[in-house]
Amino acid sequence: MSFSPLLQNLITSLRALPGVGPKSAQRMALHLLERDREGARTLSESLLQAAEKVGECQRCRNLSEETLCPVCEDDSRDHQLICVLESPVDLIAVEQTGGFNGVYFVLKGHLSPIDGVGPEDLGLDQLFERVESGEVRELILATNPTVEGEATAHYIAEQLQDLNVNITRIAHGVPVGGELEFVDGGTLAHAFAGRRSLKRSQDD
Amino acid sequence: MSFSPLLQNLITSLRALPGVGPKSAQRMALHLLERDREGARTLSESLLQAAEKVGECQRCRNLSEETLCPVCEDDSRDHQLICVLESPVDLIAVEQTGGFNGVYFVLKGHLSPIDGVGPEDLGLDQLFERVESGEVRELILATNPTVEGEATAHYIAEQLQDLNVNITRIAHGVPVGGELEFVDGGTLAHAFAGRRSLKRSQDD
Repeated sequence: MSFSPLLQNLITSLRALPGVGPKSAQRMALHLLERDREGARTLSESLLQAAEKVGECQRCRNLSEETLCPVCEDDSRDHQLICVLESPVDLIAVEQTGGFNGVYFVLKGHLSPIDGVGPEDLGLDQLFERVESGEVRELILATNPTVEGEATAHYIAEQLQDLNVNITRIAHGVPVGGELEFVDGGTLAHAFAGRRSLKRSQDD
Repeated sequence: MSFSPLLQNLITSLRALPGVGPKSAQRMALHLLERDREGARTLSESLLQAAEKVGECQRCRNLSEETLCPVCEDDSRDHQLICVLESPVDLIAVEQTGGFNGVYFVLKGHLSPIDGVGPEDLGLDQLFERVESGEVRELILATNPTVEGEATAHYIAEQLQDLNVNITRIAHGVPVGGELEFVDGGTLAHAFAGRRSLKRSQDD
């Protein structure tokens, strides 16, 4: 193709975005140059600012350019309830349910000895310190339901088992709205093992 | 959602890209900040450079930061054969067929009196001047097969009809690989009207 060099550069750079292939990159580049130069300038500036300044929250390791992220700074949230997640994307997923009012701790990964990722890389010292200080009532382990996620959750639970803190793991089971037919065996087995009584217990 | 301000800005700015909704913008922003800061910086720079410097080719009005675009500068192409298009996206589509070796003229729009788009906005003076200078053998009108595209093509043909230049319009008909069943009536009518003999003509 005979694009001018700057246009070709732009198309190539746009491919750094996830899910953007050569065709979409062309379409995006032409759209910006033909119809939305202002948008292109704004995006350029936002990218630079974010890439240079966004670091991590000193308390929860979520992405933030301030010392504390908006969640950790929010006094209306329950700071005694910490949800432990593997990544900021998971944090967004939980936030969007709108049903969680505690705070977070983002591991940015999972234990993976084969890749050389140990407890110190996940900031676990920092998490354990917070729990040991006695300021935490419950730790919800919401790492991914994968082998590594499970191992990480178990490691954390193991390390903290002598402390006076509730440690819970999110439930595994069949997704709401799904059909049993299409659920994999592992999930089904978990759903059966974790079954709950619908009869009211006698002391209710 | 509780994104930090710079992250929120980035997500908002990413939505200037065509086809990027709120969810994709989040995913893109987090991907860049978590895994590809270098890509974010490069994209920022490419956007800025392109938005500031890419103008149009002085000869064919295609996007280019130089006086002449790569196609107009290419001596191996047939400069006596000009394909007239509505937009740079169309140019890419034609280039990608690999079957056209002439040059282009990009109108950047179509005649639309209701929107106040007249011949001067499409650079037609410039095109007509080139044709009048006698350097053009054939003008292929490849505007879109829409009412406005047809009107624009007819207007150009009309204006140049007394000059010694071939003026052609790309064929309308059924798309290759399609099924008649799903082709609209207007296209089918064009396909019948434009039917070609498969018998060899006698003077072959």
